[in-house]
Amino acid sequence: MIKAQTLKGFRDFLPKQAKKRQYVIDILRKTFESFGFDPLETPALEYEEVLLGKYGDEADKLMYRFEDNGKRKVALRYDQTVPLARVVAQYQNELPLPFKRYQIQPVWRAENTQKGRFREFMQCDADIVGSSSLLSDAEVIALTANSLQKLGCKKFKIFINDRKSTSYFKTNFDISTEKIPCMWRAFDKRRKTGEEGVKEELIKCGFSITETETLVSNAKMAPPTSELDKIFTYLKQMNMPVDLFEFDPWMARGLDYYTGMIFEIQIEGYSGGSVCGGGRYDNLIGMFAGKNIPAVGFAFGFDRLIEAMEELNLFPQNLNYSSARILVSIFNTELFYKSIELLNQLRNNNINAEIYDDPDQKLDKQLKYADKKGIPYVAIIGPDEVKNNMVTLKNLKEKKQETIPLDELVKLLRLALSGVEG
Amino acid sequence: MIKAQTLKGFRDFLPKQAKKRQYVIDILRKTFESFGFDPLETPALEYEEVLLGKYGDEADKLMYRFEDNGKRKVALRYDQTVPLARVVAQYQNELPLPFKRYQIQPVWRAENTQKGRFREFMQCDADIVGSSSLLSDAEVIALTANSLQKLGCKKFKIFINDRKSTSYFKTNFDISTEKIPCMWRAFDKRRKTGEEGVKEELIKCGFSITETETLVSNAKMAPPTSELDKIFTYLKQMNMPVDLFEFDPWMARGLDYYTGMIFEIQIEGYSGGSVCGGGRYDNLIGMFAGKNIPAVGFAFGFDRLIEAMEELNLFPQNLNYSSARILVSIFNTELFYKSIELLNQLRNNNINAEIYDDPDQKLDKQLKYADKKGIPYVAIIGPDEVKNNMVTLKNLKEKKQETIPLDELVKLLRLALSGVEG
Repeated sequence: MIKAQTLKGFRDFLPKQAKKRQYVIDILRKTFESFGFDPLETPALEYEEVLLGKYGDEADKLMYRFEDNGKRKVALRYDQTVPLARVVAQYQNELPLPFKRYQIQPVWRAENTQKGRFREFMQCDADIVGSSSLLSDAEVIALTANSLQKLGCKKFKIFINDRKSTSYFKTNFDISTEKIPCMWRAFDKRRKTGEEGVKEELIKCGFSITETETLVSNAKMAPPTSELDKIFTYLKQMNMPVDLFEFDPWMARGLDYYTGMIFEIQIEGYSGGSVCGGGRYDNLIGMFAGKNIPAVGFAFGFDRLIEAMEELNLFPQNLNYSSARILVSIFNTELFYKSIELLNQLRNNNINAEIYDDPDQKLDKQLKYADKKGIPYVAIIGPDEVKNNMVTLKNLKEKKQETIPLDELVKLLRLALSGVEG
Repeated sequence: MIKAQTLKGFRDFLPKQAKKRQYVIDILRKTFESFGFDPLETPALEYEEVLLGKYGDEADKLMYRFEDNGKRKVALRYDQTVPLARVVAQYQNELPLPFKRYQIQPVWRAENTQKGRFREFMQCDADIVGSSSLLSDAEVIALTANSLQKLGCKKFKIFINDRKSTSYFKTNFDISTEKIPCMWRAFDKRRKTGEEGVKEELIKCGFSITETETLVSNAKMAPPTSELDKIFTYLKQMNMPVDLFEFDPWMARGLDYYTGMIFEIQIEGYSGGSVCGGGRYDNLIGMFAGKNIPAVGFAFGFDRLIEAMEELNLFPQNLNYSSARILVSIFNTELFYKSIELLNQLRNNNINAEIYDDPDQKLDKQLKYADKKGIPYVAIIGPDEVKNNMVTLKNLKEKKQETIPLDELVKLLRLALSGVEG
């Protein structure tokens, strides 16, 4: 017999987990749309040439590529930015710029799973394409903050820097262009390893001890660029609380990609790393269109976000339940029609309800099913209840039950559920 | 330069289309959950051996299969039923039966695109696994009806038959087992080609003219099985209007797969074919578990559903707009802060709003952007408006504008938008 197993790095999401994921996606969508971002979907498979060579050699090795039945060379979606660039070129007459789009789809990378990485994971991107205005930079930052707040996350910090501050170091310390990437990679270690770690890395880059000391003491005091100053002003005008964002002259992020403002977000109390990163990248989106198209945006790390929300207990309690809020049990085949009547009534009143599937099963087994499945309430209509037009409502978690008038069930249930509903 | 193009049979969904898809998915999810169905997600890639040979030789040819970087033979999700069977076996201790799950994910098939088929398309499945009760058959039928009603579809017909009625024909007309599949394929043509078409097919199966006449005249009057009678009774008890479902003794569907009740749904006024099909299949889900596990369920044809809803004009008008309901224009850099203030106010009141990205652009260009993007309203705050604490609200579609007190904007806009919101 064939073994029932998934590929390494690929995951099934059983109901409880699938619900949490959907909860986050629903809130992100709604928040993105409230800022005027529109959804975009692109195919899982693209011509290999569309994706290949766009992310660097290392990435190409991680890409899922194969020949399809028609001998076409194809590749699975590796990220959502290159497909966005293709879309912008392919539909340039239909898409008015600035194009504000979000995209929430899985991507595939043959990563080393020993690092706790997955080979199929969701990306949540939002970008403004075709705008070089710093107001757009502020908008995307404000959107990330708003998204986290809508997810119930109150304490987080958005670290912001500007890729253009490179010129500050070049001009003031006469650093050769070749050493710049190494310098930024060293700076970027600051939050993890402290200044001593940065110094070690700078030495490795070939800076002398004196140069290293000078660089580190100056990086601390490096002023924000005039662009960042303007973005900070916009953020304040947008009522963003000042304790949510911070200028971080050490932060580098993906050097080759960004051309201006860069940012990443740490959630307080979550040690799994940055949950969101983004910035301005003015030289990428135009690659298929044959011209420069400015862009600014971000991506949430979906798995980290879920993990952080679990650790911080930000998911509403009702996600732990089955979709059904109540199981209508069946007392016996004669009274079955009363159970169906109740089921209809509950569903007509928008209460998620299911009926036990077997009219001949003992009540005890029905209760066990509800309990195992995490359905919080069970309704019982036996002969006594029918006679008096009542229903017995069992609360499985609290192991309590009461017999109430049938026509009060919807009202009482709504009240009881309101305590656990998001 | 690399050409910006998609693979044949693969589609981009630009905002308007992506929104319609999301609208349908949201309603389906909500309806499925109201019946107590829980979400499940499975990976896009599976071990080839999990999928191969499960759908027949023709299907295997259409499967996207390849060797991954670790030389594992893998295949892209071909449907959602085989992965469900794998999940049921793999997590049998975690999943209490009956397991009621829905799954809405893309599948990939290297179909002949000339038939208007796609190689990547969404499937929407809901199934009850582990229940042989006919009440479950009725539940899934009721769920399809309820889903269509929630999508705004009022006139449709659910055609229902029972695979077990085969025994009626075998017993009464002494048909050999080998001829049964051909007979059903002939019967199944009835809705498309009428009785004459059925007769032609039966002759091709090797039935004599007399046998053919007898079969056809009897098929018309074939009685529903006792199981179907019971399902019909359940449906009536569930308050399903009797004009929504109909016994169809001719209907066959995928013969090899189903073991009991089968059904499909036609939407009145839509000629693209059945939008939903399903039935009971008791011998499939246990394939990885090594035992028989009964199951009943259905799949909506997502692309057809969208097409039918478009033809019947069932999508709410607001889906034709951009996510933003209002563009806050910028009169000039001095008054920019007033625009940002208004933007904050609108978003705080849950009105999807965006601000024009360039504070130095002419008003005319800003209006054109809103119009092209399909944002229905534009707010203007110039010096006169600021002086009097007013705002000018432009309705782009009706080419009307009025200047109103700033603190009445939210109220008025809500009122105006309520006419076009779903």
